Amino acid sequence: MKELIDKIRAEGIALNEEVLKVDSFINHQVDTVLMDRIGETFAEHFKNHGITKVLTVESSGIAPAVFAAKHMGLDLVVLKKSTSKILGGEVYQSTVSSFTKGTRYELTLAKKFISPEDRVLFIDDFLANGQAAMGFVQLMEKAGAKIGGIGILIEKSFQSGRKMLDDLGLDVYSLARIRKMNEGMITFES
Amino acid sequence: MKELIDKIRAEGIALNEEVLKVDSFINHQVDTVLMDRIGETFAEHFKNHGITKVLTVESSGIAPAVFAAKHMGLDLVVLKKSTSKILGGEVYQSTVSSFTKGTRYELTLAKKFISPEDRVLFIDDFLANGQAAMGFVQLMEKAGAKIGGIGILIEKSFQSGRKMLDDLGLDVYSLARIRKMNEGMITFES
Repeated sequence: MKELIDKIRAEGIALNEEVLKVDSFINHQVDTVLMDRIGETFAEHFKNHGITKVLTVESSGIAPAVFAAKHMGLDLVVLKKSTSKILGGEVYQSTVSSFTKGTRYELTLAKKFISPEDRVLFIDDFLANGQAAMGFVQLMEKAGAKIGGIGILIEKSFQSGRKMLDDLGLDVYSLARIRKMNEGMITFES
Repeated sequence: MKELIDKIRAEGIALNEEVLKVDSFINHQVDTVLMDRIGETFAEHFKNHGITKVLTVESSGIAPAVFAAKHMGLDLVVLKKSTSKILGGEVYQSTVSSFTKGTRYELTLAKKFISPEDRVLFIDDFLANGQAAMGFVQLMEKAGAKIGGIGILIEKSFQSGRKMLDDLGLDVYSLARIRKMNEGMITFES
């Protein structure tokens, strides 16, 4: 998606081979016109996939996902990052470890907001090692729900997430794909 | 706002005198049509207040705030809940204690996203004891920015937040005001 790639070129800051700062338009300050366009682009791409619900993870996935869901006329469900396992039968949980941040959390979804009849579109800001996306996949397995697609704003193609999702036969649609990067340098897939 | 009050009557669950669950349309599952209407309502109310930027707190304020900012043609800035004080001169921070949840965090805003020329609209899902809103007020004082208004989805008028903000002379606009509640019972301000 040209608008997003242009914005990354203009304002994205590559700190090293793995960390890209996009806090002026996605993570901290949010460019709402761009997020609405991104939502519209996902809605257009996935319109014939029979999607019944959009899911994302708190908190930087919410802005693009809520616009996508709005454009599709669907509800959004925001997966919570809980610090502890919740006992009792009301939620599905799946453990996610973030190598880069050194954190670990339980991706949490209330059972009442998902059913085996659902066909879900997952939207997130980044796809790198695919830990959050795999947590989502595991939650859908537990719920018996179908995955209709995965929409990503920025994919770091040189990390393992994309291949992992491709190997599962999932339809992954990334708006900007970065082939490699380093301090002050970003190369997109052509 | 009639649509929101109707939705709270239909799906909100009052657990006791203080806790109202709205996780089927605001906090966990998000009704995107309603959030867009809420954003439009805030944009309409605050259109002549000279607002330059919309702010909210992660993560349940993001959905309504991003629609409000979009309708106003403005950027949104999402205040982060950091668990630690960040040293160095790049951020403003203000400590927020949540009595109900027993948590404490540093409301965090990067200096580069706010200036003394800004006139800010703060949007949040709940106003109860006003701790998050007061954290926001303190951040604006530190930044030397002006407060153009505060937009709240659900105000618990019987708690202290509303009075505290009124005493500061701030323009607080709440879409649903709850006068009292108890298990299974919610009474709105007429």
